[in-house]
Amino acid sequence: MTRRIVYLAGGVGGSKLAVGLASLLSPDELTIVVNTGDDEEFHGLHVSPDVDTVMYALAGLTNEVSGWGVTGDTFSGLSMLERLGAPTWFNLGDKDLATHIRRTQLLRQGWSLSKVTNELSQQLGIKHRIVPMSDDSVRTVIHTPEGPLSFQDYFVRRRCEPSAAAIDFTGADTAQPSAGFSEALQEATAVIYGPSNPIVSIGPILALPGLRERLQAFSGPRIAVSPIVGGEAVRGPAAKMLRELGEEPGVGAIARRLAGLCDILVIDETDRDAASEVERWGMKAVAEQTIMTNIEDRISLAGRVLELAS
Amino acid sequence: MTRRIVYLAGGVGGSKLAVGLASLLSPDELTIVVNTGDDEEFHGLHVSPDVDTVMYALAGLTNEVSGWGVTGDTFSGLSMLERLGAPTWFNLGDKDLATHIRRTQLLRQGWSLSKVTNELSQQLGIKHRIVPMSDDSVRTVIHTPEGPLSFQDYFVRRRCEPSAAAIDFTGADTAQPSAGFSEALQEATAVIYGPSNPIVSIGPILALPGLRERLQAFSGPRIAVSPIVGGEAVRGPAAKMLRELGEEPGVGAIARRLAGLCDILVIDETDRDAASEVERWGMKAVAEQTIMTNIEDRISLAGRVLELAS
Repeated sequence: MTRRIVYLAGGVGGSKLAVGLASLLSPDELTIVVNTGDDEEFHGLHVSPDVDTVMYALAGLTNEVSGWGVTGDTFSGLSMLERLGAPTWFNLGDKDLATHIRRTQLLRQGWSLSKVTNELSQQLGIKHRIVPMSDDSVRTVIHTPEGPLSFQDYFVRRRCEPSAAAIDFTGADTAQPSAGFSEALQEATAVIYGPSNPIVSIGPILALPGLRERLQAFSGPRIAVSPIVGGEAVRGPAAKMLRELGEEPGVGAIARRLAGLCDILVIDETDRDAASEVERWGMKAVAEQTIMTNIEDRISLAGRVLELAS
Repeated sequence: MTRRIVYLAGGVGGSKLAVGLASLLSPDELTIVVNTGDDEEFHGLHVSPDVDTVMYALAGLTNEVSGWGVTGDTFSGLSMLERLGAPTWFNLGDKDLATHIRRTQLLRQGWSLSKVTNELSQQLGIKHRIVPMSDDSVRTVIHTPEGPLSFQDYFVRRRCEPSAAAIDFTGADTAQPSAGFSEALQEATAVIYGPSNPIVSIGPILALPGLRERLQAFSGPRIAVSPIVGGEAVRGPAAKMLRELGEEPGVGAIARRLAGLCDILVIDETDRDAASEVERWGMKAVAEQTIMTNIEDRISLAGRVLELAS
């Protein structure tokens, strides 16, 4: 029987394991479902940061130093936008801007975000399916003492400094999972949660109507990889946000958020002693080397996750 | 009495004399009215090539080697757009793209092209008024044996190779002159026609409803500078187009097209012997050095034109 893996991903961490999985799975064995809760419009252009991070990673275009954007990109356009009086706190390289220009053009022609993502992926030579979690608008809002902030406003402009009092996913109550996501889940033999922020990357996906129920009822193996290692996020504000929301940032918090939705949580080997914190939430803990610094790490971790999923 | 000059311009040639005029006139003495007949949408962005050429020239940003675009620009975005499968025959640098991104964003917010042009000009530190000829859509169409081509399609993609059988200005019959143009003309003490293509740069301006009548009835001096020198266009397809439309490309053809609308045509000193071809159309010919290779030439010609206009 052919494996049909549905892989749920946010940005940088999620994209690294995506590359590993795509190295080991054929295109018909893998569907990469990406968070769109932190999509935002900049300069009138539709930016899908997580979709792009995954897309650039699979196309071999990632700027590995910064972790976002396109390698070798220039920033002439942004400097001109600044000169023209536009707010430029969100860093956008010229090649990256081209992606947003093209996406926006196709969206305005009436294409769905799924269709646009498929088109851009194909043009970039990507063989595996990347699908946005939804073609409808879902926007992550961080409620802070400064007022509600969009995710990018919080994450980039305010550098995650304000305390997160609560998180909303505006539009999630009526948004539908994209057809590509829904169909892939229907046919899936296993579900993998990437090492992405449980609150703002996996959270918006789980907030889609019916998704939790479908994942709860899913009969195949469900494997997650913890984005928290040694009580800190490998990258990004996950640990800080968990703390502010009153949770101890550790593998236990990841397990708690996936309780009933996951069978095995892959934790870093440095967290081996915390396995019981995972298992109290009704899932198995498996300790692995989860830090992915190079392509070998990505393939190795993907291979181990696929073993657990079989 | 304060001089109030209305200067009508197309792209490169027009922008050179605009720089000269702006060097000699205070901001309240000059309104630069620019052709928008060759505006076009690329990648979903509104491009106003003539407006930008004038704007970049007045901001000191012109790429003097190519004559278009921004000096020192990069082309990363265009290379990415090509990779993403977009048609990229129209060359757009990254800084130039930023102008179009910003313009499009503001237009979509409901701003008029005049308001956007004013905003971009101010941000670029331009003190003189640049106004588009109209805020309504006028599109120059070149009818060729290959079928109708938009101006940019004809000029850039097809490198002016197809024969021009006829020219249309789609929308010109219902477009209104912009308020800035109309008011400037109301208060004008003199009108100057830039050394721009008489067919596709000055032509669309003259095609606006009521414009010919207003220029015919204008009581102050009306001065034009010939874009044709020695039977050839200083730049662009003016001579070729005139020939294809059955006209001898020379200063006489320029005079004929401005008959009744112009009092003095400044011709190049190399065309001194052709003065009678100008005068038969009811205007005076004045021979000057009209080739503008550097800033001194631009100021010198502008000074001479202003003398004639006083």
